[in-house]
Amino acid sequence: MPDTITVTGLVATTPRHLVTSDGLPITSFRLCSTLRRYDRAENKWVDADTNWYTVTTFRQLATNVVGSVAKGQRVVVTGRLRVREWATEDKHGTNVEIDADALGHDLSWGTAVFSRTVAASA
Amino acid sequence: MPDTITVTGLVATTPRHLVTSDGLPITSFRLCSTLRRYDRAENKWVDADTNWYTVTTFRQLATNVVGSVAKGQRVVVTGRLRVREWATEDKHGTNVEIDADALGHDLSWGTAVFSRTVAASA
Amino acid sequence: MPDTITVTGLVATTPRHLVTSDGLPITSFRLCSTLRRYDRAENKWVDADTNWYTVTTFRQLATNVVGSVAKGQRVVVTGRLRVREWATEDKHGTNVEIDADALGHDLSWGTAVFSRTVAASA
Amino acid sequence: MPDTITVTGLVATTPRHLVTSDGLPITSFRLCSTLRRYDRAENKWVDADTNWYTVTTFRQLATNVVGSVAKGQRVVVTGRLRVREWATEDKHGTNVEIDADALGHDLSWGTAVFSRTVAASA
Repeated sequence: MPDTITVTGLVATTPRHLVTSDGLPITSFRLCSTLRRYDRAENKWVDADTNWYTVTTFRQLATNVVGSVAKGQRVVVTGRLRVREWATEDKHGTNVEIDADALGHDLSWGTAVFSRTVAASA
Repeated sequence: MPDTITVTGLVATTPRHLVTSDGLPITSFRLCSTLRRYDRAENKWVDADTNWYTVTTFRQLATNVVGSVAKGQRVVVTGRLRVREWATEDKHGTNVEIDADALGHDLSWGTAVFSRTVAASA
Repeated sequence: MPDTITVTGLVATTPRHLVTSDGLPITSFRLCSTLRRYDRAENKWVDADTNWYTVTTFRQLATNVVGSVAKGQRVVVTGRLRVREWATEDKHGTNVEIDADALGHDLSWGTAVFSRTVAASA
Repeated sequence: MPDTITVTGLVATTPRHLVTSDGLPITSFRLCSTLRRYDRAENKWVDADTNWYTVTTFRQLATNVVGSVAKGQRVVVTGRLRVREWATEDKHGTNVEIDADALGHDLSWGTAVFSRTVAASA
């Protein structure tokens, strides 16, 4: 079973686009999702912790994301979570990634004009 | 625990917008999500069944959806599932609804130009 | 993308077990999930609506569910949602099903003694 | 919106139980979830990467987990993901946690005898 997750959040870096040597388009950026909790004393929702992710998109989604999504915008993304350990010669750490299955601007925060690039039969 | 679900699919009806007597904006439309399955004999993914939902949005999201989303577009939506039984004098049935928490155009299918309508401090 | 969902709820019917003519074990039961909402006036969580599902399990999971799960117990189930229209000669309706990928007793409500039936290498 | 996730996996450490000074029971353990991918060349599912999580349970669920769940068992857990940065005087790192809303033995792998500890009216 894939570890599927859906998050909403703020695009925190300018999306970076590349094409692999075998022709696969990839676009990725950092996303921060600020969790909310209900403060019973205050009787209202307040900001709690922030989760940071690296969101990675592939193929047609990658091509459309680099042409549509900018730093500072709000998006909704659903995909498969990957917890990756990494190491260089002198450092190591953990990166939390989402390989996106679908991604769009979160219309809770604004409007969008959409232009289809994929044929209806696809 | 809410019955949270994320679906991608085709907007199948023109979004219908209304404002309740106490000032709550609501926008709703029908969404169809076509499931895929891997056909091992054919060695490729094929269309399987279709799920139909009524997607309902509220407040700022409702206002932005009616100005952004049109019939025939592809969207990603996350929210709370509601299975509602309904009855009129001579008919009854079941409606499957998603009360959306976030919704955007699915950039797997096209590009979007986003304009923020909610202040950054919100 | 499958319409994946996770729900917790009450097993509302005795699980029904069958084996298809080509040897596939299937166990299914009705599940009700009572949604909760925060009542700001009362300052506490209260019961809201109830969602009804038909949960269907296959293969080893089906065999283990029929030997473990009884009406009245609380479970957590994750799987793929299917909204199916059905019709007989004089009636028709909608059934909301979850094809389970995993299912267990919800330990928020009790304890469980687990016995492994599948080898570790599986 | 909470970053909700559902995972299935192997309990990799003996659950550790404690009660905070203000009386809150907490039980936590490490969980590994091995992702699968479909190998088209081999025409079968194979193991891919492994995600590691710290699963934390609270209150009645914590009390029942410590009496029911052992290292080496398979469970299904749903909850809220937290990506936490930590630092001591000479080390720092990232911990990926799931604050569980519900948790049970995954009956795909075995059978379970369930005993209710919470009254039906709860």
